[in-house]
Amino acid sequence: PDKIGDADFANYFCTYGYLYHQKDMLEDTQRMNAYYDAVRKNPRAFKDKVVLDVGTGSGILAIWAAQAGAKKVYAVEATYMATHARKLIAANGLENVITVMQSTVEEVELPEKVDVIISEWMGYFLLRESMFDSVIVARDKWMKEGGALFPSNARMFLAPIRTNTANQKYNDFEDSCGGWDNFVDDTRENYGVDMSALTDTFEKEQREFFLNTSAWVDINPSQLLGAPCVVKEYDLNVVTLEEMKSVDAPFSLTVLDAMGNSEVGAFAGWFDVHFKGSKQNPCETEVELTTAPDANGATHWGQQAFYLERGIKPSDGGAVWGRLEMKRKRENQRLYDLKLTWEQGEEQGKPNEEIGESSNVWHIE
Amino acid sequence: PDKIGDADFANYFCTYGYLYHQKDMLEDTQRMNAYYDAVRKNPRAFKDKVVLDVGTGSGILAIWAAQAGAKKVYAVEATYMATHARKLIAANGLENVITVMQSTVEEVELPEKVDVIISEWMGYFLLRESMFDSVIVARDKWMKEGGALFPSNARMFLAPIRTNTANQKYNDFEDSCGGWDNFVDDTRENYGVDMSALTDTFEKEQREFFLNTSAWVDINPSQLLGAPCVVKEYDLNVVTLEEMKSVDAPFSLTVLDAMGNSEVGAFAGWFDVHFKGSKQNPCETEVELTTAPDANGATHWGQQAFYLERGIKPSDGGAVWGRLEMKRKRENQRLYDLKLTWEQGEEQGKPNEEIGESSNVWHIE
Ligand SMILES: Nc1ncnc2c1ncn2[C@@H]1O[C@H](CSCC[C@H](N)C(=O)O)[C@@H](O)[C@H]1O
Ligand SMILES: Nc1ncnc2c1ncn2[C@@H]1O[C@H](CSCC[C@H](N)C(=O)O)[C@@H](O)[C@H]1O
Repeated sequence: PDKIGDADFANYFCTYGYLYHQKDMLEDTQRMNAYYDAVRKNPRAFKDKVVLDVGTGSGILAIWAAQAGAKKVYAVEATYMATHARKLIAANGLENVITVMQSTVEEVELPEKVDVIISEWMGYFLLRESMFDSVIVARDKWMKEGGALFPSNARMFLAPIRTNTANQKYNDFEDSCGGWDNFVDDTRENYGVDMSALTDTFEKEQREFFLNTSAWVDINPSQLLGAPCVVKEYDLNVVTLEEMKSVDAPFSLTVLDAMGNSEVGAFAGWFDVHFKGSKQNPCETEVELTTAPDANGATHWGQQAFYLERGIKPSDGGAVWGRLEMKRKRENQRLYDLKLTWEQGEEQGKPNEEIGESSNVWHIE
Repeated sequence: PDKIGDADFANYFCTYGYLYHQKDMLEDTQRMNAYYDAVRKNPRAFKDKVVLDVGTGSGILAIWAAQAGAKKVYAVEATYMATHARKLIAANGLENVITVMQSTVEEVELPEKVDVIISEWMGYFLLRESMFDSVIVARDKWMKEGGALFPSNARMFLAPIRTNTANQKYNDFEDSCGGWDNFVDDTRENYGVDMSALTDTFEKEQREFFLNTSAWVDINPSQLLGAPCVVKEYDLNVVTLEEMKSVDAPFSLTVLDAMGNSEVGAFAGWFDVHFKGSKQNPCETEVELTTAPDANGATHWGQQAFYLERGIKPSDGGAVWGRLEMKRKRENQRLYDLKLTWEQGEEQGKPNEEIGESSNVWHIE
């Protein structure tokens, strides 16, 4: 592809070129219902309006916007999926309303400004993929004063959960290190090379993999050991690129354990987005898309689990508070490292001095 | 990384930066024994010689060369693994003999020419990863007249095999297409969009995935339905970049079925390499590394299976002959498409006219 940076294509855009992957998203009913409702229950926002769909993929959102009476829809997609979208749009008789453009939205030239920008840009724990950067660029360049972003608001949540996986991860880590020790013995014996100088390096690498990497999970609400807290809120109509670069936010949680003996094995993170329109053009009907733990099964985003090497015991005190920081990876701006720093005690702000401050970093892969 | 192309880093070099992955290779005993023997059983080739290790990884081959008495070893590695190699080498007391250089071999500057180049560059079905290109560049730039490449020769094999996986792949393909049809119905009903215009595109994509992609397999020799044939041989000391660009070679196979009723469900491909030194400096002891089917289990390369949509029946005649072509993918020169074109009959060269010519393309992923 000409217009996409080569590394970004290999890392990021490649998968979106497959219908198989688009289908995964199109079969996520919670995602689909929310966007469908956001369009259908807000006819005023779309009727006779000019709409931009950032990252149209299969073209689904553009089609809904057109069906809702949009005057014109610009459907921009970086990958070859644009060709399929064009075909789908024609088959649904909407080629006169929707113009598909294969380009990154950063480089696209539209013939006019738009009333509405609709986009499904969210990644794991909201920010992964950093695709909202592209929406901001489009918003600032192409949205009319008073126009509305769909969705318009986003929130990130954190909650303490009960899980056995934390122990399992730790065991897997130990097994892997044990395997290395055998390997060192074998290599010394069979090939006359002492690999033990790399034992620390290997352990560090495996620790990163097993203990410092978050995981996709589909949590049952019964695993929650306390109410989730909102760690971060974004007003998408106004947030800046600068503000999206990183996160640094306080959080505070209360561990409520009905059983009285469950350890917090992990923090879980998820997000929701809301469709509220803008101040000048508020939605008739507000719609929510949440990726919170759900007994009926997760969206394709699931939740992210940040496993703890040392669980939080009920006896540590039920108050947990600290900071959540997220930084982009230097090598790949679409990926993040998440750092949690926290204290515990009987009451918020009164740390149990024996335990002191804890902190850990997780790679969101 | 500065010196590696970004896309190539994302696609290719990234995994080699992990000790975990290097360990996989270091635990492949057939691979290890062959290289170890190639060095240890050929002391004349290494004693007091200057050696270049192209892609030293953990540094293992460089260490063996130094232990065999090399005067100087240049160990070149593109990834950060170079740092670990340096540490390992120092821990084994060889830092005065081996100089580790973090660089692609294409860009490295050595202070002198070398007598021997050792490298483990082979990928799936020999050519995947295209790393031998780098060895050629190094050979033509840095090897003394009459120097020797380790390994010095390589061969690619093809054989007819019995397998149930071919049917399974076909069933998976059908299931996936059935799933799409349901999806089309659901989307029409629930969201008012007719996706059927993309059915062909989806089927084509899934066909590529299930039926036109080769797979890593660990074949039991009992699955072989005939002797393997050599489709391609390389004299690595002299082969040119131009000659490595693609493969176009005839093959002929005889299907021998002891049971009398086994279909050929796939062609299997693998390779071997030999350590013979060069004309001017032949090895004292020739060593072979083969990745052929082995009842004791495969090397980490396994074999590649090229599944047939329509199996070859014993009644089709036991002679199968045709051409094997391999081309690099346009988007990624390290990956290949393999095309087989063949005829069948009672005797080589006398095609069964009813069946005619068959052909298929597989992506080697
Ligand atoms: N900067 C950019 N410019 C254009 N397209 C982009 C982009 N960043 C991501 N995309 C595309 O945005 C899509 C996000 S997935 C969402 C697809 C579709 N709107 C749906 O809701 O089903 C992908 O197809 C991806 O290729
Ligand atoms: N052009 C190039 N320049 C330098 N290193 C390269 C290279 N192409 C591949 N490599 C490195 O070559 C290694 C191949 S794997 C073999 C590692 C080691 N020699 C062993 O036998 O165990 C990888 O570590 C890879 O990063």
